[in-house]
Amino acid sequence: MRISELSQRTGVPVPTIKYYLREGLLAPGTATARNQAEYGDEHVQRLRLIRVLLDIGGLSIATVRKVLDAIADERLPLHDLLGVAHHALGPRPVHPENDDDVRAARAEVDEFLAGLGWRVRPDAPARHALADALVALRRVGWRVDARALVPYAEAADRLARCELEGIPADASRADTVRSVVIGTVVYEAVLVALRRLAEEHHSAEKFAPRRPAEDRRPGHQGACG
Amino acid sequence: MRISELSQRTGVPVPTIKYYLREGLLAPGTATARNQAEYGDEHVQRLRLIRVLLDIGGLSIATVRKVLDAIADERLPLHDLLGVAHHALGPRPVHPENDDDVRAARAEVDEFLAGLGWRVRPDAPARHALADALVALRRVGWRVDARALVPYAEAADRLARCELEGIPADASRADTVRSVVIGTVVYEAVLVALRRLAEEHHSAEKFAPRRPAEDRRPGHQGACG
Repeated sequence: MRISELSQRTGVPVPTIKYYLREGLLAPGTATARNQAEYGDEHVQRLRLIRVLLDIGGLSIATVRKVLDAIADERLPLHDLLGVAHHALGPRPVHPENDDDVRAARAEVDEFLAGLGWRVRPDAPARHALADALVALRRVGWRVDARALVPYAEAADRLARCELEGIPADASRADTVRSVVIGTVVYEAVLVALRRLAEEHHSAEKFAPRRPAEDRRPGHQGACG
Repeated sequence: MRISELSQRTGVPVPTIKYYLREGLLAPGTATARNQAEYGDEHVQRLRLIRVLLDIGGLSIATVRKVLDAIADERLPLHDLLGVAHHALGPRPVHPENDDDVRAARAEVDEFLAGLGWRVRPDAPARHALADALVALRRVGWRVDARALVPYAEAADRLARCELEGIPADASRADTVRSVVIGTVVYEAVLVALRRLAEEHHSAEKFAPRRPAEDRRPGHQGACG
């Protein structure tokens, strides 16, 4: 297909597609004439993936490139891919390493994760993010330790198991990788949004309770997926 | 205390404190002499709150100001505060409103939340974020509907209930507000980090299973808080 059809099928404007081509996010099409190229279904797929990462993940062009590079690296075992993608997603640690509080919090987080039996890279950026959160809470005077993480770890464990189970075992590497990356980014946005809505709801229930006469529908009790 | 002590107690450098004063994030101290002011405990508290929002929440100075304004507005009922804070936190909707897919997804999300019985503002930005996620998934070819949100809604509901229960009913408005805002921002970072770690773990379990001889410790099964 020509670039105009590629644009039509993905909803991405032609100048934006050209920008992604210049930035190397999208592989060039097959040249068919001077200033004309032919694009295939893989371009459609790739463009949609780029839009998910940019729009829903809120990633920068540079970060999208790193994630796409990890996806493209066929030598990377599937189980390592997420670790690499997470590195690209950030965030960077905010507290300096040479601080005693930070060192102590990192050791606590490592011990906590070891206790869960989770197999995660020793340099996973999320370890540092957790330690940063503990340090931040202590600096505002909250007396928390790693036990405060337990309900979040349980929720995360349950959701991640569901997500990974949903990926067919016989899918191609390319499809699996796409699924994992899209799931990571989009369902993170979903979880953050629903947590905020749930907080707003429970905050209303606590600070402005309804009269008993009002309708209180029970919460959903659906299963995995 | 003088600005140098304020800096020492919070770990925020003096030039940074001066910047926050100029930006209006921090109220001026009481002038004691030309070019000298006295700061109190409320400045320590406020500075720590600002650092949490900037460092862990990753907010911009402008967004921090909006959140602080919501906190300072005594006329704002407590149960409305989170809605206002969430507005400031973003994200903005990414898909244009005049798109049929987006309109349909928004209606689905509204219906889903009504079904849960959650009390959330009709203009809560997280509603749009959810609709954007559904649209994004459909555009990459995933056949999802609002039922895909159920496990996330359940996890969010459980966590938000725990968080709100943890706030003492007899706390002052200022303390309650601080707790709610800090909890929103920091535990969001905690949840995102733990979900990524759990994904890395379950991805390893699925794509590079361990031999049966290897140690498989059970996951934590702790309770709320």
